[in-house]
Amino acid sequence: MNAIIITIGDEILYGQTIDTNSAWIGRELGLLGITLREILSISDDREAILEAIRSSSQRADIVFITGGLGPTRDDITKNCLAEFFGVGMKRNQDILKRLQQYFQKRGAETPEKTLPLADVPENCIALPNNKGTAWGMWFEEQNTIYVSMPGVPAEMKGLMSEQVLPKIKEVFELPNILHRHVLTAAVGESKLSDLLEDFEDQLPKEVKLAYLPGLGTVKLRLTAKGDKRSILMKLLDEQAEKLYEKVGRFIYGEDDDVFEAVIGKILKQKGYMIATAESCTGGYIAHRITSVAGSSDYYQGSIVSYSNIIKINELGVSERTLEKEGAVSEATVAEMLKGICTKYKTDVGIAVSGIAGPGGGTKEKPVGTVWIAVGKPDSPRLRKIQLPGNRLQNIEMTTVIALEMLRRYLLRDK
Amino acid sequence: MNAIIITIGDEILYGQTIDTNSAWIGRELGLLGITLREILSISDDREAILEAIRSSSQRADIVFITGGLGPTRDDITKNCLAEFFGVGMKRNQDILKRLQQYFQKRGAETPEKTLPLADVPENCIALPNNKGTAWGMWFEEQNTIYVSMPGVPAEMKGLMSEQVLPKIKEVFELPNILHRHVLTAAVGESKLSDLLEDFEDQLPKEVKLAYLPGLGTVKLRLTAKGDKRSILMKLLDEQAEKLYEKVGRFIYGEDDDVFEAVIGKILKQKGYMIATAESCTGGYIAHRITSVAGSSDYYQGSIVSYSNIIKINELGVSERTLEKEGAVSEATVAEMLKGICTKYKTDVGIAVSGIAGPGGGTKEKPVGTVWIAVGKPDSPRLRKIQLPGNRLQNIEMTTVIALEMLRRYLLRDK
Repeated sequence: MNAIIITIGDEILYGQTIDTNSAWIGRELGLLGITLREILSISDDREAILEAIRSSSQRADIVFITGGLGPTRDDITKNCLAEFFGVGMKRNQDILKRLQQYFQKRGAETPEKTLPLADVPENCIALPNNKGTAWGMWFEEQNTIYVSMPGVPAEMKGLMSEQVLPKIKEVFELPNILHRHVLTAAVGESKLSDLLEDFEDQLPKEVKLAYLPGLGTVKLRLTAKGDKRSILMKLLDEQAEKLYEKVGRFIYGEDDDVFEAVIGKILKQKGYMIATAESCTGGYIAHRITSVAGSSDYYQGSIVSYSNIIKINELGVSERTLEKEGAVSEATVAEMLKGICTKYKTDVGIAVSGIAGPGGGTKEKPVGTVWIAVGKPDSPRLRKIQLPGNRLQNIEMTTVIALEMLRRYLLRDK
Repeated sequence: MNAIIITIGDEILYGQTIDTNSAWIGRELGLLGITLREILSISDDREAILEAIRSSSQRADIVFITGGLGPTRDDITKNCLAEFFGVGMKRNQDILKRLQQYFQKRGAETPEKTLPLADVPENCIALPNNKGTAWGMWFEEQNTIYVSMPGVPAEMKGLMSEQVLPKIKEVFELPNILHRHVLTAAVGESKLSDLLEDFEDQLPKEVKLAYLPGLGTVKLRLTAKGDKRSILMKLLDEQAEKLYEKVGRFIYGEDDDVFEAVIGKILKQKGYMIATAESCTGGYIAHRITSVAGSSDYYQGSIVSYSNIIKINELGVSERTLEKEGAVSEATVAEMLKGICTKYKTDVGIAVSGIAGPGGGTKEKPVGTVWIAVGKPDSPRLRKIQLPGNRLQNIEMTTVIALEMLRRYLLRDK
């Protein structure tokens, strides 16, 4: 089963818009076992559109077309499709009704110039768009399926999820493909693959493992492909269990779990309040924690102590420690942790101090040296890390590692 | 002048990688007045590659090919190019030498399996890659130019900037196209376009204005196209000056200026220290300020006061104010500003308190209500804003608006 994507729009060719739609569609098709053989980006030009549809129709079972469905003069995809199929246009009453409702709700008449939105080629099935006014279109001609959708990502994704993908599953006999995503943090891809060497060797032939790395996180994807759904589900369960045995300590969640939200949930379960004291991360840990809605239930606040004076006056780090050990040291982060938890009256905390770069490094403490303290102030977990990135990467990596240290601390804490 | 981009690699079709290269190349070509007519993404497959090169050669003056140049079995672009041109491969001594130097520096022998990296089609000009081991290739055949580059973005960009674009300017007679980017913050695209209506009407025919909106920022691009470079530069200077007259108060910089760094520079010039007190932005303002290298010269630190207790105990906000006016109020942010500047002994500060959402809104203070105070604690600038976004968008918009308020405050401050 082969597919081709045609994206229509000058904004992609001018480089004003990065085409993220195609990657999303490519992934969704992959999950169904459909091969995407080509992505073709062309301009809002009649000749180019007709030629692209013509050449794709001979090489694919499904042709996805995005873009060019708005009400402006540039938007000529519909007319090109009608021309390609040799049919006329007709006004679709369902689309018209929804359009009128849309403007009624806003207390307005339906503007004349929006009426062409209700016109579609005679041979199409119109697919309702719940996120916008331009509907999707589905064509079946000579064993090829053509799907036309708006280029706005949210509208395209809505149409695909609600209309197009279910219809494809109906029309085609597709192999069963099941996925399970296991999410890890603060461990590198190479370390994981070392730990999982035996695991990969023993995988049954129906199951594959893929590593999808992010900054400080790696998503492990188990994919099972075969005839019987129930058997595949059992296989995935068995293999996921083995994965937990091998690398369980790095796993913070599955599928759509969000790292910061998982930690927030543990804090809430324990009834713990938390506060943070940040030097080199400059408020980014606080930002990540507070990016979760409802974080005020467990998050008290932060002191960003960019200068030593603040470390001394506000966090109670002793001048002696700063002189003897320096601001980037085990003793300093331990005192920062104690200071913030005492002052903000929280059960646990996170404290970090390091050299994010590009300046500030020394021979003993090069750029990327960071000390982290997490947990209760009287029984903290302390760790030194050495990061290889640029300033912003070091800030992000430190944040992920500190949050993951806290997660593991909380799980061990009775 | 027409160009086509062919990107080779299964990772794009599988949706594992988003193709950002093509947008970058498209923008660069646009700046030279070259029209990108098509982007074609295909798999690492001999047939597909040959067919794509063949069909592009008939429709473009320049064909850019990215990907498929590594040392592994998947990487077959070079062999396909040799096959397409009907030539053999030869070992390039320059590439070989650089390869040997690369491994010598690392104290290693050049591995046998990397030697094919030095083999290129007989008819190519090899282009040095200063960011990796796979060189670029330049072909001229029958009035069409073919450029093959690695798909790694940093390597492709290096090759384009250092080798390919200069060569294109040599080979082709291109129109002069000059650009000037004027950067604005905390003003919407629609307000700008209202203010610039007369300005747009009076633009000479050689000059165009484009609006490139980001989150809280709008880049205004002036483009001049014509024969004589000196005339175009003069035209751009004249029009930029008019732009400053019309919307100068929103302009924070030009071209590659970074918003936070511009503000840091003003603080340094004035010899001011700054601190921040954040509620709803949860540390994000601190993060943006400290994302600039060297920000410790003027940034003292932050208190993230997510709970009222912290506002009272640490920032000295009076319980009476919180009770009477609420945490999201003019009086509260004014007291927060005074508190942070006094405690952290800084000249100026930023204080914000608001409802980022999705919860926490009331009828009087709906989600998106934010109070901001900036400047010196005894003569602050205070402002209430009402934002329409989701939680993360509201955090980002608040941050941009607060920083822009501070920038304007500092410019007025004598």
